[in-house]
Amino acid sequence: MAFKSIESLLFVLITGGLGPTKDDITKHTLCEYFQTELEINVQVLEQITAFFAGRGLPMLESNRLQAALPKACEVLINTRGTASGMWFERSGCVFVSMPGVPYEMKGLMEDEVMPRVSQHFERPSIVHRTILTQGVGESFLAESIKDWEDSLAEKNIKLAYLPAPGMVRLRLSSYGGASVDQQHKDIAEKEVELKGLIGEHIYGYDKETLAQAVGELLKKKGMTLSAAESCTGGYIAHQVTSVAGSSSYFIGATVAYDPAVKIKQLGVSAYDIETHGVVSQQVVEAMARGAQQLFGTDYSLATTGVAGPEGGTENTPVGTVWIACATPNGVISQCLKLGKSRERNISMASNAALNLIRKEIIQTNT
Amino acid sequence: MAFKSIESLLFVLITGGLGPTKDDITKHTLCEYFQTELEINVQVLEQITAFFAGRGLPMLESNRLQAALPKACEVLINTRGTASGMWFERSGCVFVSMPGVPYEMKGLMEDEVMPRVSQHFERPSIVHRTILTQGVGESFLAESIKDWEDSLAEKNIKLAYLPAPGMVRLRLSSYGGASVDQQHKDIAEKEVELKGLIGEHIYGYDKETLAQAVGELLKKKGMTLSAAESCTGGYIAHQVTSVAGSSSYFIGATVAYDPAVKIKQLGVSAYDIETHGVVSQQVVEAMARGAQQLFGTDYSLATTGVAGPEGGTENTPVGTVWIACATPNGVISQCLKLGKSRERNISMASNAALNLIRKEIIQTNT
Repeated sequence: MAFKSIESLLFVLITGGLGPTKDDITKHTLCEYFQTELEINVQVLEQITAFFAGRGLPMLESNRLQAALPKACEVLINTRGTASGMWFERSGCVFVSMPGVPYEMKGLMEDEVMPRVSQHFERPSIVHRTILTQGVGESFLAESIKDWEDSLAEKNIKLAYLPAPGMVRLRLSSYGGASVDQQHKDIAEKEVELKGLIGEHIYGYDKETLAQAVGELLKKKGMTLSAAESCTGGYIAHQVTSVAGSSSYFIGATVAYDPAVKIKQLGVSAYDIETHGVVSQQVVEAMARGAQQLFGTDYSLATTGVAGPEGGTENTPVGTVWIACATPNGVISQCLKLGKSRERNISMASNAALNLIRKEIIQTNT
Repeated sequence: MAFKSIESLLFVLITGGLGPTKDDITKHTLCEYFQTELEINVQVLEQITAFFAGRGLPMLESNRLQAALPKACEVLINTRGTASGMWFERSGCVFVSMPGVPYEMKGLMEDEVMPRVSQHFERPSIVHRTILTQGVGESFLAESIKDWEDSLAEKNIKLAYLPAPGMVRLRLSSYGGASVDQQHKDIAEKEVELKGLIGEHIYGYDKETLAQAVGELLKKKGMTLSAAESCTGGYIAHQVTSVAGSSSYFIGATVAYDPAVKIKQLGVSAYDIETHGVVSQQVVEAMARGAQQLFGTDYSLATTGVAGPEGGTENTPVGTVWIACATPNGVISQCLKLGKSRERNISMASNAALNLIRKEIIQTNT
């Protein structure tokens, strides 16, 4: 069955209520609505059994019943959990039921639902390309790319500014054109122009993370990284090691939360801490050099600051953060003035540090 | 103006489109709809000016224009950014426009919108209480609390199981009752009963994190914590230091990603790594003891495992993780068999490690 246009029918996506507990009533409700009944699906039962066996967990009757699915539906296999998805069709209407856990729902949506949607519906051809920038506010970006932005209309391309802490994503969307190939060409052409205008701020494209971009640069150079983190408390190391394969360039990190750790493990001088304060250029640069030596790496990132919400002083208010990058040729550092939210300060300081090494590696290469 | 019931009118919440760039057209659209015009709001302009000055950034004309707001609206002051919210009323209908950045939207919603909603509308009295559990699957929980769950109906309380990686939140909701006081009493009574059934798995309530719960326990005992992280790559340290005030009990961590760091900094024996493998009970326990000594802390958490998606072997498949906790009385450890998603494995292993120390401290206290 194939529908010509998305307007011709009702397409309902439902999430949640598919778990093994009493508050999960979606399957029963769907059975009532579609006048059908549950039956054990052998393939799903095998998969659930393997799921529990693989984790060394016993399986309860309530888990077995997750394989009981409505006869009238097409079962959508969930490879990430024990709650299957369901696809119902009636009188030209489609109902899709997916689990509510975001991780499982996303997997089913990508693997099972979207391919079926593409099969059933003729969709307008929209081509997206997202250009990722770090370290510049959206108003500044807008100012620098004004004329370029105006030129997008003639190619039927729209631009959206999508700000996140410390970064702005620029999403280009081409709505139709002579052909999909032409849409891709138009977007690629505009992307090249944009690179000429703000190239130094672009760290990647689409779903790439800043840590992935840094990892790619390090791999290309065959060089290694370590970190010495105070106010970011391990978040740089976490971002770097979230990238699969990061063990080929990331050696390790010292989270030096207590000043004594900075002195004992990273070799920061007690005199510098006393004289300049623990949040200072002297201390952050000594931390970066200390980690570079301790871990024997080519590069090292360091942070020290007041993440907040308490702990600020007149000279060093909450949101003051020093970041540094030790390189094979010396140390560079930078002072950030951030806001009052601890969570955002940690995330913005980590991203700024990753951007510092990214720019440094690129500049050294050219 | 006050409305008696939420059904009596239209209440529209809009987010996004309030930034300084060309794609932001919400204010202009609202002006057209409400037949009004923009004027500079002096208070907002001062606040925007201070915002840029505080961050040491220059201010552009486009930033200044963010203080231009529709005459016909009540301005909702945004303390987290430069885009103000707006509250419009016409013929008994309310339109609220908020910025699209989640952090700013949430702040405005809590500080400005909800208090006005409470003023305008009589709302049904719903009392929520969320009980947070860690380390047990939802089907097992459901099995253990079956009779208790059945008894909730007589108090007009509903239970929702809200699963997340490695944890299940149990949300109790009381819908109406003799009085709000009675609702709170009913919920408190059921909470006490629940504690009797699954107390050991409960780590906290409502919005508490596992790292907060561990921090409270350490503060009470006046004891300190460090970590030695391999596969979790700094995520335990990040979770612990996300808690404001954690510097009073958290000394630091070593992210020992490279085996050489485990040997050199944490004192793990090369022989143990060679003989038992880097993902083994021997190595994780040596890491925990090593960090305990290196940082001079009472407790230390350690992890080593295969986060995936690559790098597994027949004996140590992806998702195999050893966690350990060094205590003043020795080391305890545990092997986890997790799944194939790197992100989830990192998060589940960190949570399991934090739960290991939580249970250990509680058991030692009783």
